[in-house]
Amino acid sequence: MEIVVLRLGHRIARDKRITTHICLVARALGANKIIISGEKDQSILNTVIKVNNNWGEGIDIEYRKRWKEVINEYKKKQFCLIHLTMYGEKIQNTIQEIRKKENILIIVGGEKVPSEIYKEAEFNIGVTNQPHSEVAALAIFLDKYFDSTELEVNFKDAKLMIKPDLFGKKIIHVS
Amino acid sequence: MEIVVLRLGHRIARDKRITTHICLVARALGANKIIISGEKDQSILNTVIKVNNNWGEGIDIEYRKRWKEVINEYKKKQFCLIHLTMYGEKIQNTIQEIRKKENILIIVGGEKVPSEIYKEAEFNIGVTNQPHSEVAALAIFLDKYFDSTELEVNFKDAKLMIKPDLFGKKIIHVS
Repeated sequence: MEIVVLRLGHRIARDKRITTHICLVARALGANKIIISGEKDQSILNTVIKVNNNWGEGIDIEYRKRWKEVINEYKKKQFCLIHLTMYGEKIQNTIQEIRKKENILIIVGGEKVPSEIYKEAEFNIGVTNQPHSEVAALAIFLDKYFDSTELEVNFKDAKLMIKPDLFGKKIIHVS
Repeated sequence: MEIVVLRLGHRIARDKRITTHICLVARALGANKIIISGEKDQSILNTVIKVNNNWGEGIDIEYRKRWKEVINEYKKKQFCLIHLTMYGEKIQNTIQEIRKKENILIIVGGEKVPSEIYKEAEFNIGVTNQPHSEVAALAIFLDKYFDSTELEVNFKDAKLMIKPDLFGKKIIHVS
């Protein structure tokens, strides 16, 4: 099973924090790889590498200038292409079918998604049909795809771990 | 039942998009009200009002300079205070208990959360104990709190609606 997230059209000036959140959500909720297309932004790659180093492996991260090449590559590898969009079919009506797919490329748009993406995707999926957030849509998609089992995963080789606590902060430093 | 989200420590220069996403996620996933503390940012209030106007009611939005006053007010109203934090107890171990609470104030932090918040909260809750995104944490919390029933809600008095579609964009203009 391989779950890859493709972030479309990253713009350094405007999207830095949102794209960083997308990367960290992909990592925390069980995706194997994140690919960023659009403008190259080394700082985001560095952030993700640093989080992997501190909090454990983790997620692969890659920058690719051309999203079309990514789409073509994963189509050839026979991944199921899923585009998250507020225009899509309701997730609650499709997730059972999508769970049968072992290898998926989740496409997460920016402000303007090329119409080609809607055609290339096997599923255009809406997490509600209201305007909200690609970060939230990705999070809920992954949580539903994994049926919340991702919440129990431990990350290998972590230097820092949290001892979950109802009342405060407890960090464990692993040496 | 009343679900209120309190966003702590908004900074105009840095948090505009993340806070906007938090507001829209709160609206789309069934919260009744969002309160923003920190720097006053009229543009975010305007965005939310515009989304309510176009896509239907909707969520109340309010700016409050002092988060302490908000906390005190909702404690007096006997709301259950829940703080979303990566240090918190796992959501999957606590959500059953939290679902019994009818009126809740969900506190969503920024970069530096005052230690007082951890003490004031009845529950400090982690959506994973990994670093990721307050937008994602709020989304998953609301989805679990409502047990995904929020995905089926229709918004009243919408001028724009989407006809969910697997393959493209279909917007309905209500006149």
